[in-house]
Amino acid sequence: MTMDAPPAISDRRAWETVLQSIESELLSGALKPGDHLPPERQLAAELGVGRSSVREAVRVLEVLGLIRTATGSGPTAGAIIVATPSGGMSALMRLQVAAQGFAVADVVKTRLLLEASVVAELAAARAGDSAQSHHAQTTDPLDPARKLLDAMDSPALTEAEFLALDAQFHVALANASGNQVVAAMMSGLRNSIESYVLAAVPNLPSWPRVAARLRVEHGGILAAIEAGDQTDAAAHVTAHIRRYYAESRLGPPNSP
Amino acid sequence: MTMDAPPAISDRRAWETVLQSIESELLSGALKPGDHLPPERQLAAELGVGRSSVREAVRVLEVLGLIRTATGSGPTAGAIIVATPSGGMSALMRLQVAAQGFAVADVVKTRLLLEASVVAELAAARAGDSAQSHHAQTTDPLDPARKLLDAMDSPALTEAEFLALDAQFHVALANASGNQVVAAMMSGLRNSIESYVLAAVPNLPSWPRVAARLRVEHGGILAAIEAGDQTDAAAHVTAHIRRYYAESRLGPPNSP
Repeated sequence: MTMDAPPAISDRRAWETVLQSIESELLSGALKPGDHLPPERQLAAELGVGRSSVREAVRVLEVLGLIRTATGSGPTAGAIIVATPSGGMSALMRLQVAAQGFAVADVVKTRLLLEASVVAELAAARAGDSAQSHHAQTTDPLDPARKLLDAMDSPALTEAEFLALDAQFHVALANASGNQVVAAMMSGLRNSIESYVLAAVPNLPSWPRVAARLRVEHGGILAAIEAGDQTDAAAHVTAHIRRYYAESRLGPPNSP
Repeated sequence: MTMDAPPAISDRRAWETVLQSIESELLSGALKPGDHLPPERQLAAELGVGRSSVREAVRVLEVLGLIRTATGSGPTAGAIIVATPSGGMSALMRLQVAAQGFAVADVVKTRLLLEASVVAELAAARAGDSAQSHHAQTTDPLDPARKLLDAMDSPALTEAEFLALDAQFHVALANASGNQVVAAMMSGLRNSIESYVLAAVPNLPSWPRVAARLRVEHGGILAAIEAGDQTDAAAHVTAHIRRYYAESRLGPPNSP
């Protein structure tokens, strides 16, 4: 019941009308990845809402990883449907951890659960692959993970640089499994506790020793996957994650 | 480089400044669940951004399940920090499935993975409980799931009503496990394919027969948890979900 609200739709929920309309167009296929959103002015006129409501809905879609907007221009000028879920998942989980909607312990438990399943599945796929002799596979889905391990061998890395590559290694394993939902979740889980992980580095007994051990453990995870041993791969990754979190005494800074 | 941008911050990213500022306050504990956000006017003045940018950030926080706003008032009047992640997770996953960022098959696979782990954990907890004789547990975390099964026994339910209770039963199991991250994910996964599940009901051979079978299978899952049998509980829930999806030939309407 604000003064400048259009007759049919209360100003309070006008932005939701925009969001629902775009969701319907996505579901029907009228809008798909690569398409541009109609201009702000046009959307506002078509839906009978104010331009500011269109802008609010566009920001929501941007944070959820549904659209990319061009720099320097107005909100919908050049807004393209992209469907990149990782960014949205990271924003959501990071804010929920910050607001204590998600406990750090639950984030770590969920990571263990997803990651044990990811490496077991990768090992199973590898075992299946080697059973078929002479298959012509052009690219190995584990290559990005291997390259990250090579990069982590550099002794010149700072702690933050090493840990950033380490996070990427784990997300690369999730990507290799080919399940985009699990990959986005893994990326979100890791990003959501990034600040806690960095803050906990001084709790570690000796960074050089820890880094050396992490390198060995990462190699062990990859070797178990390559050997096609599901149980061993899951056991390696579980021990690796548990040990690091226990040793760094990871937790929210203001936890009881 | 828009004409009405404030001097220091480009208008393009002003809303992100607001979001980052609120995230910092959440991380430091200056803002916590139950607190009100400062009024829109005050936030805009403090951060040197326009009020419309504050409104955009508030909408983002609302969709991500970080704040609740009062009906009928302006965006930040009565905006309270709530940290309820399920709604945000559902919005994100629903839109990503609609935009084909997430494949329905990956959503189903992820559900299988999380749910097998949830019921195995519940069974393990149950086995541990019964080992401690005469423990005084006042409420059973499985009670909400049991009540939902009772409700599903009613023969008067429509297909949509039955399936809504069915979805709640599975989310209730996730809630019983106590892991808020997994519970929010489960809720989001189920909501994201809601429209596909309903659209696939006519594919089922006979609804009364399917409903009868689902009741038996739900009872079997709960019985395996109560018996403390992890393997059996995981096997029951996996078979239950796989069978339903195969039988209803679930998939996106416009899939190749």
